[in-house]
Amino acid sequence: MSSSTPGPGPGATSAAAAREQALTDQVVASLDGAADPRFREVMTALVRHLHAAAREVRLTEAEWQAAITFLTRAGQACDDRRQELVLLSDVLGISMLTVTVNQAPPGVTESTVVGPFFVADAPHVPLGGDLARGAPGTPCWVSGTVRSSDGTALAGARLDVWEADDEGLYDVQRPGGELTGRGHLLADDAGGFRFWSVRPAAYPIPDDGPVGELLAAAGRGPMRPAHVHFRISAPGHRTLTTHVFAAGDPWLGDDAVFGVKDSLVAEFVEHGPGDPPPPGGPTGTPWTSLVYDFVLAPEGAPA
Amino acid sequence: MSSSTPGPGPGATSAAAAREQALTDQVVASLDGAADPRFREVMTALVRHLHAAAREVRLTEAEWQAAITFLTRAGQACDDRRQELVLLSDVLGISMLTVTVNQAPPGVTESTVVGPFFVADAPHVPLGGDLARGAPGTPCWVSGTVRSSDGTALAGARLDVWEADDEGLYDVQRPGGELTGRGHLLADDAGGFRFWSVRPAAYPIPDDGPVGELLAAAGRGPMRPAHVHFRISAPGHRTLTTHVFAAGDPWLGDDAVFGVKDSLVAEFVEHGPGDPPPPGGPTGTPWTSLVYDFVLAPEGAPA
Repeated sequence: MSSSTPGPGPGATSAAAAREQALTDQVVASLDGAADPRFREVMTALVRHLHAAAREVRLTEAEWQAAITFLTRAGQACDDRRQELVLLSDVLGISMLTVTVNQAPPGVTESTVVGPFFVADAPHVPLGGDLARGAPGTPCWVSGTVRSSDGTALAGARLDVWEADDEGLYDVQRPGGELTGRGHLLADDAGGFRFWSVRPAAYPIPDDGPVGELLAAAGRGPMRPAHVHFRISAPGHRTLTTHVFAAGDPWLGDDAVFGVKDSLVAEFVEHGPGDPPPPGGPTGTPWTSLVYDFVLAPEGAPA
Repeated sequence: MSSSTPGPGPGATSAAAAREQALTDQVVASLDGAADPRFREVMTALVRHLHAAAREVRLTEAEWQAAITFLTRAGQACDDRRQELVLLSDVLGISMLTVTVNQAPPGVTESTVVGPFFVADAPHVPLGGDLARGAPGTPCWVSGTVRSSDGTALAGARLDVWEADDEGLYDVQRPGGELTGRGHLLADDAGGFRFWSVRPAAYPIPDDGPVGELLAAAGRGPMRPAHVHFRISAPGHRTLTTHVFAAGDPWLGDDAVFGVKDSLVAEFVEHGPGDPPPPGGPTGTPWTSLVYDFVLAPEGAPA
C-alpha cells in the first residue's frame, strides 16, 4: 500500500486525476534505465511522493516559484561556515528521521542529528587537556568511557567534540576563524576520555536566512536545548553521531530540530569555588562536570 | 486516503514504525502555529510525503548527505543566467505537474513549462520586426492571433517570445550578454501578431552541472524537441505560458522535461528561395513559417 501512488487531491476531477497520474507514471518510467537499482528506488519514491504532495495541495504556480526561489536562496546562503540546507532538513525533521531510520540496536548509545556545525579535522586535544581553547563560559570537566556493545573498552576510539559556548555561539559563527569549543581526543587503553571545556548554552539556530523565514512563517521558535556534540569512531564499529543534552534545560521539550532523546539527557553537576577541580581546572571560581559513557555498535549488527 | 500518512517501508519493524510515525507527527504538529492556513497545508503535505519517502526506502545517512550536497551544489550553480533548481524541477516532472494541476479549461491554449531561460523585460520588437536580433538560423516568419475563449480579439495583448537558435543555444547561454532570439510584442487591434525570428533547433538542457549528473545516473538524455516559448498576457485574462513545438522533431516523444502536448505541436513550413517572403525576409535563401493562434482564459474561469 505504502508504495502505491496516492490519488489526486479533492480539487481534481477524474479527468485531471488521469492526466496527472499519467505524467507521474511517465516520469517514473524515465528512471527505468538507471544503472544503479538503489538510485532508481530512491528517486522513484521521491518522485512519487513529491508529485503526490503537489497534487494533494493543488500546488499553484506562484507557490512553485516560491519554492524554487527558497531553495535557490538556501543553496546560495551556504559557505564554508554555514550549511542552510542542513538547517532546512533539520527543521523539517528529515535529518532526525534519517537518524531514526538508521537507529542502532537496543543497548547502543542513541544517535541524533549531526547539525550544520561539524568541522572535519578539528585540532587534537590530549586527554585532560582544554578543548574550550578560549571559548567563553563556566569551565566544564567532561569524562566517560567508550565501549563496544559487549562491554569491551574501545582503546584509541576517536571522539570529535564540538559545542556552543555560553553565549550560544559555535566558533564558526564568530569572525576570526579560530577553532574553539571544538577538538578531537583519543580514548585511553580503558576506553576512557576526559577533557576541560565550557558548559554549553541553549541557542537559536541561525535564523537570519531562508530557514529563519520558514520558522517564522510556521510560528516556530529557533531554540535548541544546551548540548555537547560527539562523533565517535572506532575500528570495526559503526560511527556514532550524537549529543549529550543538559538535564533541566527549558527547551528540552521544544527542540527546533527534534533531536532530543531521553537517553541522551544528563546532569551537568554544579561545583562551588571551594570544590577542588581536576588538574587544569579553575581556582576559586565555580565549575561544572558531566559524566557520560558511550556504547558503539559493532559493524554489521542488525538494526 | 491520500492525505493519511503512508506506513513504514518493508524494512521497518513495528517498534521502528511507531518511533518514525511519532517523529513525523511531532514535525507536523510543529506547523500548528502557522499564521497562514495555506502555508500550513502545503508544508504539512510536504513533510508527510518527504518523511514517507525516506521511510519507504530506508534512507541511509550517506544518501541523506548526498542529497544535501546535491541541493547545495544546485543552489550554488544558479546565477543571473542559469537556474539549476528550475532544471531539477523540470527533469523530475514537478514543473510540468504544477502546470498540469493548474490546467486551464478546455478550449483554451494548453500551457507547458516556463523553463530556466525566461528573462523579464526583454526588448520590444514592433509587429513585423526582427526578434532574432542576430541569433543564427534559417529565417522564420511567425504569425497568429491572441483571442479570449469567447473569440474576442485581445488587442494589445503582450507576447513575450524566446527561443534557442539553430545551434540549440539561448542568448543567456552565450557570452557577451546580448539578448537575441528574444523580445516582446504587442498584438494589433485584431489580436494579430507577426515577427521574423529563426527556426529553433532541438537542444540539450544544460547538463554540465548537478542536474546533468542526475540525468546520467538515471540513464536519461538531456534533449528537448525544437520549440518557441510564449508568455502571453492580457488584462482580465490568465497569463498563458507555453511553447509551440516543431512537428516532426525526433525528440517529441522523449522530451527531457515532459513538456510536450499534442495541441502545441505545429508545422514549421519550409519555403524555397523562390518563394517571396513577407517584408523584412531574406532574398534568395530558404525561409520557414509558423502560424499559431492562442486562446487565453478569462480570469476566474473554472479550472
